[in-house]
Amino acid sequence: MKLGFIGFGEVAQTLSNGLIDHGLKVLTCTDGRSHKSAESAKSTGVYLCSTYSELAKSCDILLSAVIPAEAVNVAKNVGKNFNGIYVDLNNVSPATINEASTYIAEGYTVDAAIMGSIKNGLKTPIIASGPRAEIFAELKNYGMNIEVIGSQLGQASGLKMLRSAYTKGVSALLFESFYAAFQMGLDEILWRYLSQTEGSNFKDSSVSRLKSSTLHSHRRAQEMEEVSKFLSKYEDPLVTRATSEFFHHLHDKLGYISEKPTDYRDVFRKFKKNSF
Amino acid sequence: MKLGFIGFGEVAQTLSNGLIDHGLKVLTCTDGRSHKSAESAKSTGVYLCSTYSELAKSCDILLSAVIPAEAVNVAKNVGKNFNGIYVDLNNVSPATINEASTYIAEGYTVDAAIMGSIKNGLKTPIIASGPRAEIFAELKNYGMNIEVIGSQLGQASGLKMLRSAYTKGVSALLFESFYAAFQMGLDEILWRYLSQTEGSNFKDSSVSRLKSSTLHSHRRAQEMEEVSKFLSKYEDPLVTRATSEFFHHLHDKLGYISEKPTDYRDVFRKFKKNSF
Repeated sequence: MKLGFIGFGEVAQTLSNGLIDHGLKVLTCTDGRSHKSAESAKSTGVYLCSTYSELAKSCDILLSAVIPAEAVNVAKNVGKNFNGIYVDLNNVSPATINEASTYIAEGYTVDAAIMGSIKNGLKTPIIASGPRAEIFAELKNYGMNIEVIGSQLGQASGLKMLRSAYTKGVSALLFESFYAAFQMGLDEILWRYLSQTEGSNFKDSSVSRLKSSTLHSHRRAQEMEEVSKFLSKYEDPLVTRATSEFFHHLHDKLGYISEKPTDYRDVFRKFKKNSF
Repeated sequence: MKLGFIGFGEVAQTLSNGLIDHGLKVLTCTDGRSHKSAESAKSTGVYLCSTYSELAKSCDILLSAVIPAEAVNVAKNVGKNFNGIYVDLNNVSPATINEASTYIAEGYTVDAAIMGSIKNGLKTPIIASGPRAEIFAELKNYGMNIEVIGSQLGQASGLKMLRSAYTKGVSALLFESFYAAFQMGLDEILWRYLSQTEGSNFKDSSVSRLKSSTLHSHRRAQEMEEVSKFLSKYEDPLVTRATSEFFHHLHDKLGYISEKPTDYRDVFRKFKKNSF
């Protein structure tokens, strides 16, 4: 089996490293990609095709791992030359997966989503759905951690969005309730009382969420807009829409932050200062 | 020490039972209260005063445990005849506590909030704040479970509201994300993936939250409106306001429900049916 990566950022590099170690032939094409991606592909030891058309013709499985905005375009570019399994591993919505799939032979797109940090290497959990998801899942033989969750496109990317709606909503709620608690000098007591119902690890995991919220506020605001659109198919997503507004508001007040804050209370102080 | 209850519902009855067992003299007045309250007071063995004025004059501590809408009025009615510690144990906002306190001698109001189910009897955690909260906390000598969290009115009732903002917001988020997951046939997989980050008890506690949301949707919608007003002092409560709207919406679709549903998916089915 031959696997080709479209895009060679951190995801592709990490998975390639592990897959090559397991004896799989991995290819990519760095035409038009960044210098960094090209260097990284060379050093990882993947086979470099000179064109995307050559890459598409040489592989049984193509794995798209690009930035969300490019997801549809890359499917369009390789689709006509490709007869294998096209795996969209991008962080995009079910609607985008469906759009990308229109450029791929009917039934040959797999919806895949990364469900943890890619820093876990080949063991990073990946969920997949689509009529041929089981064929993609054969990469488990080369050490990947893939779970097929259904036979329809949109299930894997949808599940990832639903998980995100919940966890990012919780982060927004944490900020809203603990910001007021901090202003009242009651944050330590609130941690303690909430830990009684939310579990002993509540404070540690929540503080980590508060910190990462400030680091990624702009991206999350946009992500939650996408999730809202997706949820609108099923219901009026009142809380998720508010979560998106919250992250926009947070970004307005704090701007881009390059380093994780060491103390969540510093974030509250800065938020307060910029609120007046 | 003599303790008087204003109002004799489940809270007063439960605490009286325990306090009398510990040898405290407990009084109340059932003038104008429901027949049920009067019967309950008699059977508990509390001393019955014929008027509120007699009750106020006979007690060192008065404990108000009435419905939220009556909280200010009862303070107004007893305040002029009372020289002891007035404990407002009602489920009301800091603003209401402050309003009630204007009818009580300056500095003699204690803000108190029940932080668990009263079914735990005398052991039910109660938090208290205010300049004389420590005097109220001496009831720990009679078996009560009181923690003084500060010396200002509004801290105890405020902390309870903050906890509520978080837990009820989580309930709304659970409904929003799992309703869509259920429609997609992915609810079981979403439980599993969220349990990886939210803890092993996540599904059980969340299912219980989903069920109790449907049972108390109307009350929660109103409670979250109060919490929104309270939070507005500190920030624009985007998520809490959405939580209130969510519970209004839930109540519109499901109406009053008298029994806890046995399966959360039945709730989703009914919600869907009534959405068209």
